[in-house]
Amino acid sequence: MPYFDAASSLPLHPVARQALLAALDDGWADPGRPHREGRRARLLLDAARESAAEAAGCRPDELTFTTSGTRALHTGIAGALAGRRRVSRRLLVSSVEHSAVLHAAEAHESAGGEVTRLAVDRTGRLAVDGLRAALGDGDPAALVCLQSANHEVGTTQPVAEAAELCWAAGVPLLVDAAQSLPWGPVEGDWSLLAASAHKWGGPGGVGLLVVRKGVRFAPPPPVAPGAQDIPAIVAAAASLRAVRQEAAAEAARLAPLVDRIRARVPELVADTEVVGDPERRLPHLVTFSCLYADGEALLHALDRAGFAVSSGSSCTSSTLTPSHVLRAMGVLSEGNVRVSLPPGTTRGEVNRFLATLPEAVASVRAQLAPAVRPVVETGPDGVTVDALGKRCPVPVTELAQVIGTVPVGTVVTVLSDDEAAGLDIPAWCHTHRQTYLGEEGAPGAGRAYRVRRAR
Amino acid sequence: MPYFDAASSLPLHPVARQALLAALDDGWADPGRPHREGRRARLLLDAARESAAEAAGCRPDELTFTTSGTRALHTGIAGALAGRRRVSRRLLVSSVEHSAVLHAAEAHESAGGEVTRLAVDRTGRLAVDGLRAALGDGDPAALVCLQSANHEVGTTQPVAEAAELCWAAGVPLLVDAAQSLPWGPVEGDWSLLAASAHKWGGPGGVGLLVVRKGVRFAPPPPVAPGAQDIPAIVAAAASLRAVRQEAAAEAARLAPLVDRIRARVPELVADTEVVGDPERRLPHLVTFSCLYADGEALLHALDRAGFAVSSGSSCTSSTLTPSHVLRAMGVLSEGNVRVSLPPGTTRGEVNRFLATLPEAVASVRAQLAPAVRPVVETGPDGVTVDALGKRCPVPVTELAQVIGTVPVGTVVTVLSDDEAAGLDIPAWCHTHRQTYLGEEGAPGAGRAYRVRRAR
Repeated sequence: MPYFDAASSLPLHPVARQALLAALDDGWADPGRPHREGRRARLLLDAARESAAEAAGCRPDELTFTTSGTRALHTGIAGALAGRRRVSRRLLVSSVEHSAVLHAAEAHESAGGEVTRLAVDRTGRLAVDGLRAALGDGDPAALVCLQSANHEVGTTQPVAEAAELCWAAGVPLLVDAAQSLPWGPVEGDWSLLAASAHKWGGPGGVGLLVVRKGVRFAPPPPVAPGAQDIPAIVAAAASLRAVRQEAAAEAARLAPLVDRIRARVPELVADTEVVGDPERRLPHLVTFSCLYADGEALLHALDRAGFAVSSGSSCTSSTLTPSHVLRAMGVLSEGNVRVSLPPGTTRGEVNRFLATLPEAVASVRAQLAPAVRPVVETGPDGVTVDALGKRCPVPVTELAQVIGTVPVGTVVTVLSDDEAAGLDIPAWCHTHRQTYLGEEGAPGAGRAYRVRRAR
Repeated sequence: MPYFDAASSLPLHPVARQALLAALDDGWADPGRPHREGRRARLLLDAARESAAEAAGCRPDELTFTTSGTRALHTGIAGALAGRRRVSRRLLVSSVEHSAVLHAAEAHESAGGEVTRLAVDRTGRLAVDGLRAALGDGDPAALVCLQSANHEVGTTQPVAEAAELCWAAGVPLLVDAAQSLPWGPVEGDWSLLAASAHKWGGPGGVGLLVVRKGVRFAPPPPVAPGAQDIPAIVAAAASLRAVRQEAAAEAARLAPLVDRIRARVPELVADTEVVGDPERRLPHLVTFSCLYADGEALLHALDRAGFAVSSGSSCTSSTLTPSHVLRAMGVLSEGNVRVSLPPGTTRGEVNRFLATLPEAVASVRAQLAPAVRPVVETGPDGVTVDALGKRCPVPVTELAQVIGTVPVGTVVTVLSDDEAAGLDIPAWCHTHRQTYLGEEGAPGAGRAYRVRRAR
């Protein structure tokens, strides 16, 4: 039963499991205690730090283990902002960072700080000119946060270029390397780096934070992090070294499988869009959206067929908000599927997935069909589709159905109170080459989205 | 080689080890994901929460796992204070709480809050009248923090009484149950509870926080704690259940061994003081101080003899500050040794420890002897011992040496710039029935401690 959700979490790597078992015997004591058991634990911790530092490309005394990647990000951002608060309280983040970074940015705003969110292009890649402009606009910056690769669409970011710009501006760059560290060290002259062990087959509950010497850093209280799980840390470090040794071979094997998915999905399933940069990307991750399909229903259909995948569709999240990454890219979010292949995935498994997908999408679209009953009113300015009260992906599905029935040049207005419509209708127009005219307020809580049939 | 530092950390319980291994296979996925692997992880997490809740005496939905006991305390205190900030910003803590609680209290003070530190008696037990007075002084309180048992001296606290007072005053009580939870549930009507798995043979990196329904609680950001280490959580819950099943039998076995240490140490080694309550105490923990001995040297001597113990002496800590617990109790801190017996400790091991201790203390005292060269000046008001620049335990040792050479009624003034002298000289006077007259400023950075020979 293939597990294609490697970007969420991976099973413990066999090397990590072995290291964990060995360290359970020797690494349980408090490493701060001046007795034999404490010294043994300290030795294990120091060795793990050295090994992880080598993989991260830093000095051992620049690296600390945290209780998660999220905690590493929060500590890194808070510490760097506190260290530079006399210079500036302005934080720059890309708009496709992990939610942990965006939450930290919101907390900074709540505390009176300023946040600039940098735009990305339709592939999810940071617009370097935007960063250059933000760093050069005369308003000094305290910190820039940029991921090394995006967790939802796999696009890699221009970290080395960003680091150069930051260096020239005298602003530290924090890199969220959670998705890329298993594949290799982060290039460029970054200042801080955060990552998470369960993304590389280490245990949950271990993150790492690197703060380069010379970076102004004021660690937030509490200073004492509590008892560390040294066996888990040892396993995390061992796993990172092991996956690194396998990384080049795995990347060479997985990248063509992802290419195959990228090429075949649009051929096999009508009305799909593969998103993210086709070249500058992680080797194992691909995301696509299926129009006129409910993302959650699609996950369940694939799960029943034996495939574990993930989704950035709003219908799968408790917040009913579509993925902020897809939103920032301006691409479709409905029927969204993220496939992230674990090491060892075979061509046969990918072929089976491709063979399964069309039926899964067809069944989900068929389930949706009865809900698609456009309420259409024709007026002097065109036709209006009242989709109020209907949830993603019904509004855009009704638009697609109605627009085929009106003459070219006609304006179709969709009334919707579903948040995803504001993302999906413009994105649909972009991929279907129809003219999106814009949105405006509508009676009640809804918005009116206006589209002219262009072809 | 006996390990007598159970109160710091315990090796993984065999049941925890088994549970961990099983959960590594089934609990590695993200429990929030709607696929098979995610559901399996979620089931394990829910089962662990139910099991831990039963042991803690709460409902499963009142319990969350944290990344350490320290984190549980910080989150619990911050959340309870935030939840009641409109009522009061006054936090009441006992003066012998774990440093994590005292750090949280300092953070609260830095943020403009108020902290009242409640006194304990010479056994380290909270003076309930002091709590009653603080709750009834007309100034409303936001939260009271009281440990269930002290981590340094083993004294249990009057939690049930404190809970009743808090209940009557409408103030929530947070109990730090780190040391006692393995021995049994905390009695009384407390509101919040924190504990730490590595104190009961669970893995490091797992704490638990209970917030009773109805308690006003505003969890501090970040809300998302990052990826949880579910196998570690499963192991922690399994271990807690296992140690609870063994608790009564272990307590019955270990308590007489501790009684034996309490009785024999003062007989075997001159000038020692056993501290903490002899009756109302943890079954496995005992602390004593050896006059005229350097605590760190004593730890090393015992470590060389094969015994791992702990110490609250200032000489063993990086801060050069004696334990705040011993200070609050007003007892000697020098040559301090904490013995905490792990489950399974035998009478033979304790006897070997008792046989080893006199020689270890004698060797350490002998090492110290050359440093003890009192510089004495006789004046009209008595004699002055200039111990400036000398570190614990030299000042009190010089006092003891000099006082034996002067007539009864003479005042001996010790000049010292060592922080421990302010604790140890009055404590020494108390145990040696000499009259402590008080301290005052002295030339340079030192203090002058005045003692009258009484017998």
